Amino acid sequence: MALDFTLDAQDTETHARAGRISTVHGEVLTPAFMPVGTQAAVKTLTPDEVAAAGADILLANTYHLYLRPGLETVRRMGGLHRFMSWNGAILTDSGGFQVLSLADLRKVSDRGVEFRSHLDGSRHVLTPEDAVRIQDGLGSDIAMSLDELVDIETGIEDVKRAVDRTVDWARRGLVERERLRSEGSGAMALFGINQGGVHPAERRRCFEGLGSLPFDGFALGGLWVGESKALSLEMVEHDCALFPESRPRYLMGVGHPVDVLEAVARGVDMFDCVLPTRNARRGTVFVSTGRLVVKNAAYANDSRPLDPECACYTCQRFSRAYLRHLFAAGETLAMRLASIHAVTQMVQLARRARAAVVEGRFAEFRRTFVSRFESGETLVAPA
Amino acid sequence: MALDFTLDAQDTETHARAGRISTVHGEVLTPAFMPVGTQAAVKTLTPDEVAAAGADILLANTYHLYLRPGLETVRRMGGLHRFMSWNGAILTDSGGFQVLSLADLRKVSDRGVEFRSHLDGSRHVLTPEDAVRIQDGLGSDIAMSLDELVDIETGIEDVKRAVDRTVDWARRGLVERERLRSEGSGAMALFGINQGGVHPAERRRCFEGLGSLPFDGFALGGLWVGESKALSLEMVEHDCALFPESRPRYLMGVGHPVDVLEAVARGVDMFDCVLPTRNARRGTVFVSTGRLVVKNAAYANDSRPLDPECACYTCQRFSRAYLRHLFAAGETLAMRLASIHAVTQMVQLARRARAAVVEGRFAEFRRTFVSRFESGETLVAPA
Repeated sequence: MALDFTLDAQDTETHARAGRISTVHGEVLTPAFMPVGTQAAVKTLTPDEVAAAGADILLANTYHLYLRPGLETVRRMGGLHRFMSWNGAILTDSGGFQVLSLADLRKVSDRGVEFRSHLDGSRHVLTPEDAVRIQDGLGSDIAMSLDELVDIETGIEDVKRAVDRTVDWARRGLVERERLRSEGSGAMALFGINQGGVHPAERRRCFEGLGSLPFDGFALGGLWVGESKALSLEMVEHDCALFPESRPRYLMGVGHPVDVLEAVARGVDMFDCVLPTRNARRGTVFVSTGRLVVKNAAYANDSRPLDPECACYTCQRFSRAYLRHLFAAGETLAMRLASIHAVTQMVQLARRARAAVVEGRFAEFRRTFVSRFESGETLVAPA
Repeated sequence: MALDFTLDAQDTETHARAGRISTVHGEVLTPAFMPVGTQAAVKTLTPDEVAAAGADILLANTYHLYLRPGLETVRRMGGLHRFMSWNGAILTDSGGFQVLSLADLRKVSDRGVEFRSHLDGSRHVLTPEDAVRIQDGLGSDIAMSLDELVDIETGIEDVKRAVDRTVDWARRGLVERERLRSEGSGAMALFGINQGGVHPAERRRCFEGLGSLPFDGFALGGLWVGESKALSLEMVEHDCALFPESRPRYLMGVGHPVDVLEAVARGVDMFDCVLPTRNARRGTVFVSTGRLVVKNAAYANDSRPLDPECACYTCQRFSRAYLRHLFAAGETLAMRLASIHAVTQMVQLARRARAAVVEGRFAEFRRTFVSRFESGETLVAPA
């Protein structure tokens, strides 16, 4: 069975699309921003708060959950949805990115990745087959293929080898899912991840390998890792031109509001990023008019909400002065309230972009949003 | 205007009472457990979660709020209720206890307490008049008189001097409230605090001073500070026998479930304590069958809720296994979910005691609760 993805509308001035993905855990409207629940929790938030923000899908990290609490516990507790009490869809990453960024002593070979846990130093091997089996065991709705990432400074020969390996691993993951399906499991969707760094020829070559395989969707990998914004967007344009119209497109790790809109304009459907919530926990949020550092003393007596245009719980109920006080006093509630705003703000940005596409006014929406976001009105102190 | 306190029922076998206090922020049913919102937030929780736990009153700490964000900010933000977005009643302490336990270089004289802030070392003076003015400025519904606490080892001469000072300060606080009322403010209720340590004669002498003054209620101070449980309860019995029936009685700083029930049986109406939520944030909660250390590895695969008999959000939605995972993974959500249970458990314990008094079965309720609480079934690992 292939993933059911319907395109409801396409913008005429840009490549923006409005779609919907059907999963057994409900429909996912695209463009979609997926809040990140690394360890089976979107940091500081309950699943109800994530749902109230408008999210119908979240992302969970396979590497973290595999190490703690472990696949067996999640399985015994009825799968990830039941374990964390989230009834919407879940996309899991393959674990590859975290192995390469968090684990110790990792060794990549054609077979897979060998690494030591960053928690207890225990030794593990993650093959492309393991990645698919683990995600299926977690109960993921949308799984990602194991891929090999390269640094932005990697020489072209190593980029080429990583592309070859990424295609080979993607193919092996699909074979493993077929095997699981023959055993009655493996119902989840599986996405291939396009790599090749900032080399258009390599990204094209990678997709020549992936594009012929029966993936349910395709991701843009290896971007927003230090290259210029112009180059990132060029790669997004490049990949989206190659990807089939009929499959969802997921830009991994992108979460700045303006970047999201620029990528939507180039045809991307799905996003995830820890940046908005990580910033929020440290007292900085995105609002309609840009960034707002709520810890700033300028807000000590500011009775306005974080963002007067936002309908989130935090903005409906609390003042900047109260949030500033909570941050100054070291109250956990500060991180929660700022996170609620941050998740709502991103999820609703994607929703508003969707509505604009459906209503044929995406280009105008993007222009207005970006110009207001960059207006810098935010730091004006209250009267 | 005096505080409106109605007694709905009195137990025939014990001294337990069921009452209701009318405030401009709604009715407070007694016996009542008041969650503690030290810095204008019940740690980790939103006001809606506190209300969902059943609380109709919470406590805020004058000392903390006076120092940060400061009276002026709270006042400019429309008072404490609006600042923290809590629509129920608020009882504030006088600040005296925190000055004596947290501040540096404190110096007590007949005039008041001189101290340095534990935050920035700044020098402050808190007189009984200040305590009343600050609480009125915060917008408290029920304020407490400034009192002088003594250590459990304090010699009788010093206890006597503290009692004299407590009565004098209480009287001065009332005079200050009268002055405020003559200016159109000071609408809040004011409680006197009975002191005298574990010396019945001194507690009696203290109340001889306080009882003739027009306080809206009386608190039992200086107990649960290291003396034996038997002695604590003896003092509760002693004070409640002196206090007028027609005024609410507040036992400060008591929050162990069994202690609360024992004090209710002796005629106490109101309680507050940080213990249940502080323990919860560290992974230990009270449940029907005693204490449960949810961080324990025994719960790693336990699909039961913290307390199968509890109706709180946490117990309705999440397993011990999930909470144990969140604590092990250092997720803030763990503290939140445990705190929701802890607050609900205490607020509902007081509510259930109230219903039992109204229905004439308090003695039986207390017996059953205590015997089950002490059953120790809790630590049995799942099959």
